[in-house]
Amino acid sequence: MKAYVYVSLKKSVLDPQGKTIHGALQKMGYKGLDGVRQGKYFELDLASSLTKPEAEAEVTRIASTVLTNPVIEEFQIKVE
Amino acid sequence: MKAYVYVSLKKSVLDPQGKTIHGALQKMGYKGLDGVRQGKYFELDLASSLTKPEAEAEVTRIASTVLTNPVIEEFQIKVE
Repeated sequence: MKAYVYVSLKKSVLDPQGKTIHGALQKMGYKGLDGVRQGKYFELDLASSLTKPEAEAEVTRIASTVLTNPVIEEFQIKVE
Repeated sequence: MKAYVYVSLKKSVLDPQGKTIHGALQKMGYKGLDGVRQGKYFELDLASSLTKPEAEAEVTRIASTVLTNPVIEEFQIKVE
C-alpha cells in the first residue's frame, strides 16, 4: 500500500520561497501566474499487512507528529 | 484556477533524505513502513482568463523547464 502526504504552509504564513519562484517565473516570461506556494511531499511505502483504516491512522499520526510543524504547516494525506 | 505540481526523484535515483526519514521513524517506533521518499510540491494560482487546456500546457511547460531537473526528477500535474 502507498500513502502520500502533502505538507504546505498555512495560508496565513508568508512563503518567501514561493514568492521567489513566482518572481523568477515572471521574469522568465511565464504569464498568467497569480502566485506560487511551495510545499513538501512524502511517499510512504506501507507494509501490505496493514488494513486501509490502520494505514490511514498510522499515516495521520506520522504526518501530524513528525512530518509537519503544526504551528505553521498543514497536511493532507491520501492512502491507496 | 489552481494547479498542483508534484516533483519526485526518479525511482532509479537514491533518496538519502527519504532514507533518513525512514530510519528516524523506525527508531521512533512507527511500524509497518517499508520506505519513504521525499519530493516537492508546488501550488500555482493561475489567472482565471486561461482555459483549462491552456493552463495545462503552461503548467507542463513551467514544470518541465523550471521546477524539475529532468535528469533525476519526474513530475505529475493536476489542474482544477
